[in-house]
Amino acid sequence: MRAVVKTTPGPGLTLTQWPDPTPDPHEVIVKVAATSLCGTDAHVHRWDEWAQHRIHTPRIIGHELCGHVVAIGSEVSLAKVGDYVAAESHLTCGRCFQCRTGQAHVCKNYKILGIDHDGSFAEYLALPEGVLWQTSPDLPPEYACLQEPLGNAVDAALAEDLTGHTVFITGCGPTGLFAAAVARVAGAAVIIASDVSDYRLGLAKQVGVDHVLNAKTDSPEMIAAAIQDMTAGEGVDAALEMSGDPTAMHQAFRAVKNGGRVTLFGIPTGSIPFDLPNEIIFKGIRVYGVTGRRLFGTWYRLAGLFKAGLDIRPVVTHRLALNEFAKGFDLIQSGQCGKVVLIP
Amino acid sequence: MRAVVKTTPGPGLTLTQWPDPTPDPHEVIVKVAATSLCGTDAHVHRWDEWAQHRIHTPRIIGHELCGHVVAIGSEVSLAKVGDYVAAESHLTCGRCFQCRTGQAHVCKNYKILGIDHDGSFAEYLALPEGVLWQTSPDLPPEYACLQEPLGNAVDAALAEDLTGHTVFITGCGPTGLFAAAVARVAGAAVIIASDVSDYRLGLAKQVGVDHVLNAKTDSPEMIAAAIQDMTAGEGVDAALEMSGDPTAMHQAFRAVKNGGRVTLFGIPTGSIPFDLPNEIIFKGIRVYGVTGRRLFGTWYRLAGLFKAGLDIRPVVTHRLALNEFAKGFDLIQSGQCGKVVLIP
Amino acid sequence: MRAVVKTTPGPGLTLTQWPDPTPDPHEVIVKVAATSLCGTDAHVHRWDEWAQHRIHTPRIIGHELCGHVVAIGSEVSLAKVGDYVAAESHLTCGRCFQCRTGQAHVCKNYKILGIDHDGSFAEYLALPEGVLWQTSPDLPPEYACLQEPLGNAVDAALAEDLTGHTVFITGCGPTGLFAAAVARVAGAAVIIASDVSDYRLGLAKQVGVDHVLNAKTDSPEMIAAAIQDMTAGEGVDAALEMSGDPTAMHQAFRAVKNGGRVTLFGIPTGSIPFDLPNEIIFKGIRVYGVTGRRLFGTWYRLAGLFKAGLDIRPVVTHRLALNEFAKGFDLIQSGQCGKVVLIP
Amino acid sequence: MRAVVKTTPGPGLTLTQWPDPTPDPHEVIVKVAATSLCGTDAHVHRWDEWAQHRIHTPRIIGHELCGHVVAIGSEVSLAKVGDYVAAESHLTCGRCFQCRTGQAHVCKNYKILGIDHDGSFAEYLALPEGVLWQTSPDLPPEYACLQEPLGNAVDAALAEDLTGHTVFITGCGPTGLFAAAVARVAGAAVIIASDVSDYRLGLAKQVGVDHVLNAKTDSPEMIAAAIQDMTAGEGVDAALEMSGDPTAMHQAFRAVKNGGRVTLFGIPTGSIPFDLPNEIIFKGIRVYGVTGRRLFGTWYRLAGLFKAGLDIRPVVTHRLALNEFAKGFDLIQSGQCGKVVLIP
Repeated sequence: MRAVVKTTPGPGLTLTQWPDPTPDPHEVIVKVAATSLCGTDAHVHRWDEWAQHRIHTPRIIGHELCGHVVAIGSEVSLAKVGDYVAAESHLTCGRCFQCRTGQAHVCKNYKILGIDHDGSFAEYLALPEGVLWQTSPDLPPEYACLQEPLGNAVDAALAEDLTGHTVFITGCGPTGLFAAAVARVAGAAVIIASDVSDYRLGLAKQVGVDHVLNAKTDSPEMIAAAIQDMTAGEGVDAALEMSGDPTAMHQAFRAVKNGGRVTLFGIPTGSIPFDLPNEIIFKGIRVYGVTGRRLFGTWYRLAGLFKAGLDIRPVVTHRLALNEFAKGFDLIQSGQCGKVVLIP
Repeated sequence: MRAVVKTTPGPGLTLTQWPDPTPDPHEVIVKVAATSLCGTDAHVHRWDEWAQHRIHTPRIIGHELCGHVVAIGSEVSLAKVGDYVAAESHLTCGRCFQCRTGQAHVCKNYKILGIDHDGSFAEYLALPEGVLWQTSPDLPPEYACLQEPLGNAVDAALAEDLTGHTVFITGCGPTGLFAAAVARVAGAAVIIASDVSDYRLGLAKQVGVDHVLNAKTDSPEMIAAAIQDMTAGEGVDAALEMSGDPTAMHQAFRAVKNGGRVTLFGIPTGSIPFDLPNEIIFKGIRVYGVTGRRLFGTWYRLAGLFKAGLDIRPVVTHRLALNEFAKGFDLIQSGQCGKVVLIP
Repeated sequence: MRAVVKTTPGPGLTLTQWPDPTPDPHEVIVKVAATSLCGTDAHVHRWDEWAQHRIHTPRIIGHELCGHVVAIGSEVSLAKVGDYVAAESHLTCGRCFQCRTGQAHVCKNYKILGIDHDGSFAEYLALPEGVLWQTSPDLPPEYACLQEPLGNAVDAALAEDLTGHTVFITGCGPTGLFAAAVARVAGAAVIIASDVSDYRLGLAKQVGVDHVLNAKTDSPEMIAAAIQDMTAGEGVDAALEMSGDPTAMHQAFRAVKNGGRVTLFGIPTGSIPFDLPNEIIFKGIRVYGVTGRRLFGTWYRLAGLFKAGLDIRPVVTHRLALNEFAKGFDLIQSGQCGKVVLIP
Repeated sequence: MRAVVKTTPGPGLTLTQWPDPTPDPHEVIVKVAATSLCGTDAHVHRWDEWAQHRIHTPRIIGHELCGHVVAIGSEVSLAKVGDYVAAESHLTCGRCFQCRTGQAHVCKNYKILGIDHDGSFAEYLALPEGVLWQTSPDLPPEYACLQEPLGNAVDAALAEDLTGHTVFITGCGPTGLFAAAVARVAGAAVIIASDVSDYRLGLAKQVGVDHVLNAKTDSPEMIAAAIQDMTAGEGVDAALEMSGDPTAMHQAFRAVKNGGRVTLFGIPTGSIPFDLPNEIIFKGIRVYGVTGRRLFGTWYRLAGLFKAGLDIRPVVTHRLALNEFAKGFDLIQSGQCGKVVLIP
C-alpha cells in the first residue's frame, strides 16, 4: 500500500510503498477513507526535540481518521467487515486506576496512534477493536475523520455546562474553532474569540462566534475592556484557553468573572509565570486541565451534538490527496488554513 | 385602579375598581405592562379545595408580570422610577437554612405573589425591591412577563446539562413547551414530547420538538417502543415530567436509560403507585424534584438563553385585555391555548 | 470439591460433592477463604417467584467472597497464583453505552455471580479475571469477603458527600449497618437510624449511630417529631432508604429537609403510592436509585475507607462452616443476626 | 473601651482607650469574648506595602471573633441581646451577580472586618446583623472565635469530597492544620503534610496527619518519592496548597494523580512560573481557587463537623490577654505557634 512514513530519524516524511498491515487477534484492518492533519503530526514532520525523544522509526504517522473495516482478527467479537468507523487515538492500558474508574482519557500508560503504533496516513491501518467508533453513514468521511479532535473540543468546551453562559475562547486554531462551534450549538449566550490571525477570526465568525478580537492589533488592556463591555461589566462565565500562548492565557484568566471557570487545553512551550492570587485564588475560580477525550462518553455526546446541528463545515478549509501531504504541512505552517483533510 | 379580585370566598373573580397600592419602605410600585395566566390562577378562579384552604380574601391574584417602576419606598436603594422589571413571585424569608445557603427557591417560609400578597392582575402592584428583575428593553412585555414560568422550565430542563443528550418531555402545557424550547437552544440531540392534545403537540413542533407522540391515541406500549426506536434502542438520557399525569409519569421513568435522570415538575392530584425497583433503583437513575426557580441564578441564565436564541413566540397564543380575563380562563379550561397574556 | 448447590427447581439447597471448576482462557480459579450470605441467596434458597423465573439449575449459589488464586487460564495477563482477591459480582458486558461510559454498574446486559454463573458457596470457583479485586493482606477473610455488599453501602451512603451532614438511615439490615459505618467514618454530623428490631438497633449503636428509633413501637408521627428534634427543626440533609419497607420509605422522604437528598436502595416487593408534590417536588430534593457498585471506583474508595478507620466488626455476628449454611438462612429468617459468614 | 488600634500610618499598633461603638439601625454591638490573630493582622501590624495601600487610619483591627450581643440597632429583627455569636468577616454587597447567585464569598464589592470596618481587637465592636452566626454554647470562646478561619479550611479541604481519598497538604500554618483536622474527620484515607518547621509538623501529627515531610531537610525529589511510596505509586487524589510557597506549589501539583484535584489557598507574594502541560493539562486535573467561606453553607457545615468530632484543640497553642497582642505578633513571626487567641 501507499503510506506516509517517517522512515529514519530526521526532518521530513516519505510517501512510499509499504507492506499492508495484518491484524493481530484483537485487531481489525481499516481502509482509510479520510485522515486529517494535527499539530502533533507537524511536530513529527519537522522532527523537533519532542519528536526526537518520542518517535521510533520507521513509523507511519496520523491519528485522525475514518474508514471501513476490511478484515478482522480471530478474536474480534463486535466489529464486522464493512463497518464505517472512526477511532479513538489513545490506546489505553485498561488496568490502571484511571482506566478502572472511568478516566481512561488520563490513563497512566496509554499509547498513541501514529506515534507508538502505525497510523492513518496510509491506505490501510490495523487498529485494536476496542478503539473503534461506529459512525453514522450520514457523516461524510471528511467530517467523520475529525471526530477525534472534535472530542478534544467537546471536553474543553463542556468541562462545565455552557448553556446560557458567556464564553471567551483564546485561540482559533482548528480545536478552538471546534470549541466555538460546540459552544454555539450548546446555547452559549455570548461567544467571544481572540486570535492573532484575521484569517482565523474570519473562520470564527463562520462557526458562530459573536465577537472576534485580534490579539495582535489590540492590546491586552483593549481586549479586557472589550470583554467587559460585551458582558455588561461582569466578565465571562467561562474561558477556554486553546492557544498555548502566554499572553492569551493571562487574558483568559483576566476575562473570567469571580466564581467562573477556565479550561486549559492549548499547550505552551515553556513555563509561564502566573499571579495566582489575582488570576485564580481571589476570584474563586475553577481551572480544568483538558487532554484527550473521555472514553467513550465524549464520542456519544459528539454524536448527539451532530444531531443537535453542530456545524463544522467552515473549519475544513482544505481537502488534499495523500500525495499532497507536504502541501498540508505548509498550510499549517502558514496559518492560512483551518483543518486539512487527506483523502488517501 | 382596575384589578381582578377574589373579593369573597367562592368561585369566580371580579374586575373592579380597587385602591391604588402604596409602597412600604422596602417596596416599589410597578405599573403592569403585561401579566400572564398560570394554572395556579385557575385553581383560585374556580375555588377548588386547595384554594379554599390557602387564600384569604380579598386578594388580587396574578404572579407572572412585567412593568415599569413608578414609585419607590423610602428605604429602596437600587430600583429607580422608570426601571423595566419582572418579578420573582416567591417572597422568601432570607433567614432559613435554605435562604442562607443559596437555595431560596425552597425557602421554608416563602409567600407567593397573588396568593399571600396582592398580585399582578391589576394596573399597579406593590413589590418588595428584592424580587425585582431588571429586564432588557429588547424583550417585549408579552414575553418579559413570562420570565417567571420560563424560570420553572429552565430549572426543570437544566437540572443537568442537556447538550448533546436525548430528552423526552411528558406534557406540552406552557411549561412543558417552554422546557422544550430551552432544550432546543441547549443543544439537545433529540427532543421527543407527548401530550393528549394534538393542538398542543402542534405547538411542540413549533418550538422545535423533533418527534411528538399522542398519549391519548397511542398506548404506553406504543410510546415506549417509539422512544426506543427514536433513540437507537438506548432510551433517553433525560425525561422531563411536566404533566402531573400518572400515566405520563410511568412513561417518563420507562423511557429513561439506565444511569439517566428524571425531572419531576408536573403536580399530580393524588398519590401515585410506583414500582421503585424497576422504575428507579435497578436503573440507577437520578430524580430531581423541581419547584420554583433558583434565585437568581435561573433569572441570569434565562437572560443568557434569550441571547442564545431562545424562541418562545409560538407558545404565546393569546393576548387579551384585562377585562377579558374570564375568556382566558375558558381558554385554559379548553386546552386550546399555549400561554394567555393579559395587557392591563 | 464440596459445594452448596441448587440441584433442581424447588426450595432448599444441597451441600454435595461437585466437580472442581476449570478455568476458561480469561478466567482464574479461586480457593474460597470466606463467603457471606446475602438476601438474594435467601430468595434462591426458599425458591420464591423471582428465583423460579431467574435461576436455571443446577447452580452453585453465593456471590460475596474472598480467597486466593490457585490457577489461571491461558489468556490471563494480570492475576497470578497466590493473589488474595475479592470479586465484583456483576459480570458486565463491556459493550453497552453504560459500560463504555464509566457506568458499568448499570450495564444493560450484566450477569450475576451465583445466579447466572456458578458462585462462591463452594471450595473453589472460576472467575473472569476482570472482576478480581486485589485485596490488602491486612484485611482478614471474614471482612474481605464483605467488600461486595460494602460497596453497595458506599454507593448508597456517598451518592453525595456526607461530611458534616445529618443523615437518617431507614433499615438496619447488614447493608444499612454498613452504610451507617460508612457515614460515621465520613464525618456525618448526626446519624439517626430506624428499624423494627431492637437487636438490629443495638448493632446500629455499635457501628456508631447516634440515635436509634424503633419503627415498630414508635408511630411515624413520633419518628418524624424525633428527627426534627434531633436536627434542630431542620430535618436531615440525607436519607438512606435501606429497608424496602413502604412505611420506612415515607419516613425517609418526610425526614429530609428542603433541598436535601434521598437514596433508594432497599427493594420493596410491590408498588408503593407516593405523594410526589409533598414528598419530592415541593421539597426540591434529589433522589438516587442505587444498585450494585461503581466499577471500580467504589472498590478503590472502600480500600480508602478501611484506611480511614471504617469498622464493620460489629456487623459480622456469625461465622459458620460451609456445612452449617442452613443455620445461616435460619438466622437471616429470624432477623437475629448481622452478617453471616461461611468459612468453606 | 480598650482597643488595639492602628492610629496613624506606619508600623505598629496601639492599645488605647477608644470610644464605645454605637449600632447603626441594622447593626448589633458584640462584647468580644475571644478574638484570634490572622496573618492579615500581621501585615497590618508591620505596615507592609499591601497594608499601606489598603488601610485608612484610624482603624481597630481583627476579624476573627466570638462574643455576646449586648445591644441592637432599631431595625435588627433576628438577633437578640445575649446571643452567643461569631461573625462572617466579609461584609458583602448583596447586589452583585455573585451575591445574587449564592456565591457571596466572591462578592465583587465586599468589605472586610478589621480592614474596612472597625474590628475585633477590642472590648466591643459593631457588626451588621447579617454577618452574625449563632454559635452553640457548647463551643468555648477560644474555639468559637476560630470559626471564621476554620471556614477557609473547610472550603479548601472540601472543594471536593475527601472521604476515602488520599490527600497531601503543603503548609502547616493554622489554616493548613485546620484543613488537616477537617480531612481527618471527613474520612480521608491517608493524610500527608509538609512544612519547613518541625514544630508545625509536630502539631500536624497532633491533629491526625498520618505522615509528615520536612520540606526544608528533604529535597523535592525525596518528597515526591515519599508520596509515591505512601500512595502505592498512585499519587494523591487531592492536594491542598496552604503555604503560598512556590516550591510547595510545585510539589502539590507533582503529587496529585492524573484526574485528581488541587486546591490553591496559600497566597504567594509574586508570580510563579508553571509548567502547565505537565502540572495541569496532561494530568487532566481540576484546580480550585479558594478564598473566604461560602456564606453560609460553610458555617452550617462547620457546625456539623464539630458534631462529627472535629478536634482543633492542638492548633490553639497560645491564649493571651488583649494587652499581650504584641507578643502574639512576635509568636507568629517566630513560627513557633499554631493559633494565637486574645481574650479581651
